[in-house]
Formats: sequence, structure tokens, C-alpha cells
Amino acid sequence: MPSPQPTPGSRGYIIPIGGAEDKVNDRRILQRFVDICGGEDARIVVIPTASQLDTTGPRYKEIFHMLGVKQVDVLDYRERKDTDNAEWLALIEQATGAFMTGGNQLRLSTVLGGTPVARAIRRQNAAGMAVAGTSAGAAFVSEHMIAYGRSGATPRAGRVSMAAGLGLTNRVIIDQHFRQRDRLGRLMTALAYNPFVIGFGLDEDTAAFIRADRQVEIVGAGAITVVDVADLEYSAMADSREGDAVDLIGVRLHVLSDGATYNLDTRKAAPAPLERPSER
Amino acid sequence: MPSPQPTPGSRGYIIPIGGAEDKVNDRRILQRFVDICGGEDARIVVIPTASQLDTTGPRYKEIFHMLGVKQVDVLDYRERKDTDNAEWLALIEQATGAFMTGGNQLRLSTVLGGTPVARAIRRQNAAGMAVAGTSAGAAFVSEHMIAYGRSGATPRAGRVSMAAGLGLTNRVIIDQHFRQRDRLGRLMTALAYNPFVIGFGLDEDTAAFIRADRQVEIVGAGAITVVDVADLEYSAMADSREGDAVDLIGVRLHVLSDGATYNLDTRKAAPAPLERPSER
Repeated sequence: MPSPQPTPGSRGYIIPIGGAEDKVNDRRILQRFVDICGGEDARIVVIPTASQLDTTGPRYKEIFHMLGVKQVDVLDYRERKDTDNAEWLALIEQATGAFMTGGNQLRLSTVLGGTPVARAIRRQNAAGMAVAGTSAGAAFVSEHMIAYGRSGATPRAGRVSMAAGLGLTNRVIIDQHFRQRDRLGRLMTALAYNPFVIGFGLDEDTAAFIRADRQVEIVGAGAITVVDVADLEYSAMADSREGDAVDLIGVRLHVLSDGATYNLDTRKAAPAPLERPSER
Repeated sequence: MPSPQPTPGSRGYIIPIGGAEDKVNDRRILQRFVDICGGEDARIVVIPTASQLDTTGPRYKEIFHMLGVKQVDVLDYRERKDTDNAEWLALIEQATGAFMTGGNQLRLSTVLGGTPVARAIRRQNAAGMAVAGTSAGAAFVSEHMIAYGRSGATPRAGRVSMAAGLGLTNRVIIDQHFRQRDRLGRLMTALAYNPFVIGFGLDEDTAAFIRADRQVEIVGAGAITVVDVADLEYSAMADSREGDAVDLIGVRLHVLSDGATYNLDTRKAAPAPLERPSER
């Protein structure tokens, strides 16, 4: 379960991004994240743990500096023992935003899971710090994380592996690079296990900005496919053998793009206003 | 509109197949088609017009012979003037089943559209002849045919091109090689133009056997993704510019595999019986 909020409504934004967010042009998603974190007065920690590349952390540091943020620190947790670093923990405790990069989400969960770092991020988010993650970082923000799974539009038993994530929210399961990697089947498989959660399939360069009141704003170049199985009439999951196609009857699906909103409590979507701002 | 049935309920099966149906092992789809056409007493015409390969027609002829059918004729319509061939028309008039191969569905519509051949197939199907089509042949059976379009899970304005098909049914739009080629987006785009029709996304080696009473049985190794937009709350299609992601709110989706059924009138799905037949 998410950390309790010290005061109602104090929770910071949770911002899963579908990967490959624009880093060189108008950078709308990263700019919005920076604005939420306080603009040039933001204090951002970058956690590149999912990535195996030494350049990932420094690259985001440079981008956030270019977006006007003065204080950006890269906390490159490589092993579990790194999570005791008191100086880095202090940086998290005073940050206004945390950004987790892409890579492999199992590196995030195996290195950070159950450590003081995970606890600090959870507590800080409950108190107001924004937490964004792209690709693997997006998968990790939720309680129930897709670890890996196969591509394809058809749900199949056993074709998705779940793991415990950071747990900033337990309302959604995130999948990323969604249409780029044809992942509807694996997301529906994950949801078929337990229809309580809502599936968010995030296209690349597309983000869900989840507010404290669980209203979600869609920002970016692609779309979010919201998969709602609350009214599922039938799921064959419990009776399927591994690899079987799983019959699902009554899935509800919304395709939402920039400017549209979705409410995690009411499970209602609303389109973007028709008169789009002139800067687009 | 489909040809009127000479007597109510006389219409033959309409059988779109998602492509790449099993041709060497148990050949369940082709066997079922043969059974419906009368088994060894069936009279089947193979129409390989969609294909550019000279071997396509003879290959299906050989397969149907192997399945016990004595009379199989390949009617290789290459140009519109071929459609006047009286001998071939007579074979259609006395056939119990017609099979249209894969290839390019625009070859089927441009060569056969509006000819005596199309009229004969439509009339014969209304009177009881089964009509199956695989891949391009599947796309062609419906009134509204997807001519071509781009891959991807997100519907985008202008990313699908429709054309008039053979029109054996106007209730469905067929898309084939569905999960293999990631076509949910283009199917949803096609439906967003007019929510009257129901989308059938057919995986490879998977077929919809549509009966005269518009009950549909699913047969094969994959699944059919039924996309029902009758209760769509919102479609951005009319206000979208070409290439825009199109917001859709309230899409209903069913994933149905072997043994499941769907009713085109009530728009209700039913799962396969749990106790599956022992021959599986």
C-alpha cells in the first residue's frame, strides 16, 4: 500500500512516462515535470539504477540543467549496500522531485526494494515530492509491476511476469512502449489476474500525470490506452493452461491523448477540450 | 447490402480466416470448412485472385483433395474480362463452397467488384453456399473492407483506407494477422468512422464461422478480438487532423478463442464450455 499522506491531498504527482520522451525539442513532458517540481528552484534527484549505462544519469542531469533547474543530483545506486549512503538519503529527503530512468525494472526492484531509499521516496511522495519514471522507471512506480512478458495483442496465460514495485499507487498497472511494442495482450493478462487494478498502456513520449486527487492528465505525443476490467463478465484465466489464449469478455477500453483526463476513482474519461491551445 | 436470402435462414456460412491457417497438421479450420461444404461430396471453387503466385490456387486444390473433397476447381481470375467465363460461372453456380486466398484484397475488389462473379458469389451465399476467405480473402467478404493501413495500437485519423468489399455481410469489419501485425489501432480507426459496424480482429490460424442466424463460432489456435463501439461515449475522429491520435472513450472489447461464440445481433459473447472436448 502507498505510504499514508501526512495531510489529506499532500501526495505529490506520480508521473509514469512511456519511454523515449522528447529530450531535444520542446521536451513537454520533462518541462512539465520540472514546472511541478518548482522550476528553477526545483531540487531533483535522478536515479539511473535501471540503466546499465554510465551516461544515463549525467545525460538527465544535463537536460534538467538546460530546463533551468539549478540543483540536480545523480544518485547512482548500483548495489543494495549503496542504499545506506546517508548523504544521498539526505538529498532525497530535501528533493522536490525524483526521476527514475529507463533500463530494466527488475534492477530497480532488486536494488531498491525494501531499502531506506524506497522508504524515503515513498514517504517523500506522500508528503508532496513528485516522482517521475520513464520506461522501466514507469513500470516501477506502481505496487504491481510488470517485470517482463511477451508481445502481442492476445492475452495468454503465463505470458506476463509480475513483481512487487515501489508502490506509490496500487490503482494502476503500467505498461510502457505500448503501441511501439504491441503490449495490449500482456497488459490484459496482468489485469485478468485481478480486475481490481486499472491498466495504463503508455505510448512512447506520453505520460500520465497522476494528481493527489487521482485525476490523471495525459501529456505527450502519443496516447494512453486505459484498460478497465472492472465490469468483466468473464475471464478464463483461472482455467487456462500456460500459453493458452485467455478469453476475456467485457473489457472496457479508452484511448486518450494529450489533454484528455481520466479519474482513477470514478473510472471516467474525458476528452481534451476541442479548442486546443494555440501554442500547439 | 447483402443479397436477400431466397428463404429465411438459407444463407450459407461466411468464414473469414486471419491468415496463415494450419495447412499441414490437423487443419482444423479448413477441415471444418470442408465439413460444412459437404465433406467428400463438397464442390469447392478456389479463387486465388488476391495472390500474385501461380502456385496458390493449385496448393489449396491439393489440400482440399487431401481433405477428401473430390471436386475442386481453381478459378484464377486475373483480369476483369476473365469474369465473363461462362464455364467458371457455372462452377460457382453449382458449388457448395467458395474459398478466396490471401494476397492483396484490392486485387479482389478491383478484379471482381461489380462483375457477374461477385454477383454469383453473393447470390449463391444467400442461397446456402459457404464462402471462406483467408487474409486478404477475409478482408474482402465484408461490405466495408480495410484496404490498407498502418500498424500500431493507437487509432490515428487517416491511418486506415477503406474500400467497398464483396458485401456478404455489412455487420463487421474484418482485420487479419491481427496480433501478429499489431492492428488494433487501424481497426479502431475504421470503427471510429461509423460505430454501426463491429470489428473482428482475427489472429492468424483463427477463423470466425458466421452462421445464417448471425451467431459466430470461433475456431483456431489464436483469438478474435471483438471491438464493439456501439456504446462509444466520445470519438474525436471528426475533429482530428490526419495523423492525430484519436481519442476514443468507451470501447468495448472481447478476446475470444476456440469454442467461444459471439452474436452479431445481441452483441453478446459467450466463453467456450469449460469442459473442452477430449479430442483437443
